[in-house]
Amino acid sequence: MGVKHITKNILVTGGCGFIGSHIVDMLVKKGFYVTVIDDLSAKTDLRYLNKYLEEGKADFHQISVQNYDDILSLDSNYDCIFHLAAQPDVKLSVSEPRLDFETNVIGTFNILEYMRVKDIKDLIFASSVGTVYGEPEVHPTPENYPLKPISNYGAAKAAAEMYCSSYTSLYNFNITSLRLGNIFGPRSTHGVIYDFYHKLQRNSKELEILGDGTQTKSYLYIDDTVNAFDITLKNLQEGFNVFNVSSEETTTVIEIAEELTKILDLSDVNFTFTGGKRGWKGDVTYSSADISKLQALGWEVKNPFSVGISKYVEWLKQL
Amino acid sequence: MGVKHITKNILVTGGCGFIGSHIVDMLVKKGFYVTVIDDLSAKTDLRYLNKYLEEGKADFHQISVQNYDDILSLDSNYDCIFHLAAQPDVKLSVSEPRLDFETNVIGTFNILEYMRVKDIKDLIFASSVGTVYGEPEVHPTPENYPLKPISNYGAAKAAAEMYCSSYTSLYNFNITSLRLGNIFGPRSTHGVIYDFYHKLQRNSKELEILGDGTQTKSYLYIDDTVNAFDITLKNLQEGFNVFNVSSEETTTVIEIAEELTKILDLSDVNFTFTGGKRGWKGDVTYSSADISKLQALGWEVKNPFSVGISKYVEWLKQL
Repeated sequence: MGVKHITKNILVTGGCGFIGSHIVDMLVKKGFYVTVIDDLSAKTDLRYLNKYLEEGKADFHQISVQNYDDILSLDSNYDCIFHLAAQPDVKLSVSEPRLDFETNVIGTFNILEYMRVKDIKDLIFASSVGTVYGEPEVHPTPENYPLKPISNYGAAKAAAEMYCSSYTSLYNFNITSLRLGNIFGPRSTHGVIYDFYHKLQRNSKELEILGDGTQTKSYLYIDDTVNAFDITLKNLQEGFNVFNVSSEETTTVIEIAEELTKILDLSDVNFTFTGGKRGWKGDVTYSSADISKLQALGWEVKNPFSVGISKYVEWLKQL
Repeated sequence: MGVKHITKNILVTGGCGFIGSHIVDMLVKKGFYVTVIDDLSAKTDLRYLNKYLEEGKADFHQISVQNYDDILSLDSNYDCIFHLAAQPDVKLSVSEPRLDFETNVIGTFNILEYMRVKDIKDLIFASSVGTVYGEPEVHPTPENYPLKPISNYGAAKAAAEMYCSSYTSLYNFNITSLRLGNIFGPRSTHGVIYDFYHKLQRNSKELEILGDGTQTKSYLYIDDTVNAFDITLKNLQEGFNVFNVSSEETTTVIEIAEELTKILDLSDVNFTFTGGKRGWKGDVTYSSADISKLQALGWEVKNPFSVGISKYVEWLKQL
């Protein structure tokens, strides 16, 4: 299996978002010139990008991946594309399936078509580890486990991967799909920790928990996630390759609530539960990924959950 | 696992096409009232439907599954939908990816959305057995083998199945995906047998074979295929279920050429080869599906390849 060396220009879709903006930081730091496209729809703006624009280390185009003509107007001199632009909300994918479909399926198809037409060969795609497998019978779940999503978000990421597979084979692309776990950390403005923090800000005596609180998942701190992209780029393999990017540590929702109240030094918080096994329709109740494939490339989780959540809360306090 | 009983109205998308029109025959014969939608784009017309329209046993709307507003204008009193409308050409999916994507991915998504909005719960989806697995390492390949398509046609069918999975889980649909092998027989106007027949009509001394002729696949006669849909409808199971619909018999392209020249009583036909392992980009070189799951429902292949091809040639001669 050959390894490709990417040296110069990188296009990052969704580069103003939570994960995308951290990846831009990493890429600029490594000396890449970064072009960011983002439609600024997901409560995002240029706050993390501005200094790179001023320093001439990046440029920006307000473009939605849904708009193929706009994408086609971009240059074609990118050595690699990081495709992170996505509708990120699993709940919303259930209530607004077409909205999610248009960004996450058509958007990814548009990026692949753009690459085909412009002869760009290398792509790192941000997929999902917690939603594409649905409710697998094998834990931790390996990458080659059959996909059977139970949310439209998961279906969209899995559908996009099917095209990553065919485009790799047909047009000699090199695509790495990183199936990301529940990523959290500074700049994230959604997810269970974010929600709990703000609920407790509003009422430090009571915390409503969606479902019965026993939902068990892996959570991965943003720095470890960015490191996975860095290692993937350094080891960009030929063909279509998939890696789970998650933690071996699993955490229940109740444990998150307990950890958070401890960090915030709150006592006597009354936990209430909306009930049912799932937090919402399409919520996976147990998710644990086999991460040995990425570990074999030298990647490791450096921030256990308790460390990550403390760092994240420090950031949330400054908001 | 509960079994549903469908009694009255059935919607067939792509009901003027090769497989769709045979399914309409079967459904009308069984006493169902059939509504057909078809955009008549794939060299099709109303020739097989007209008598049912005259007899008041069916109705027809010229609608493309790509046009969601047109689909929404349909009634909602369908007990079950057979979704067969598709761009059927694997080769074309490689040269015209968006054309294939719009019909086979967006079109299927539109049907699922229509069902969700109109509260229709039961769907039988025509997927593909020869293209969704790509080049699997297990033969015959079972339904739960991971999907890794090497053509956009296969990617589209696999992507559509991902949404069948999530919609089933989220909205209490019952979806059966029938992964069809290489289906042939009367009314089919594409495929290797059709192509060889017409090449030999033009020149009975020489036959050009795409690839090296060793591509090995299963071919299934149309009557056995229709029977699979019939048995599926009778045993419509709750949840998302997938069945391979193919033959245990595998045939090489050279064997097809030999069988056909024998039936046509041609001697001394010179076979020439375009060379390479694949017939075209995205062509799967070896495909053999495990069909034991459908056999367990009482389905069986009644027409061996030699019988099926003879019947098909009889029909081709009358064209």
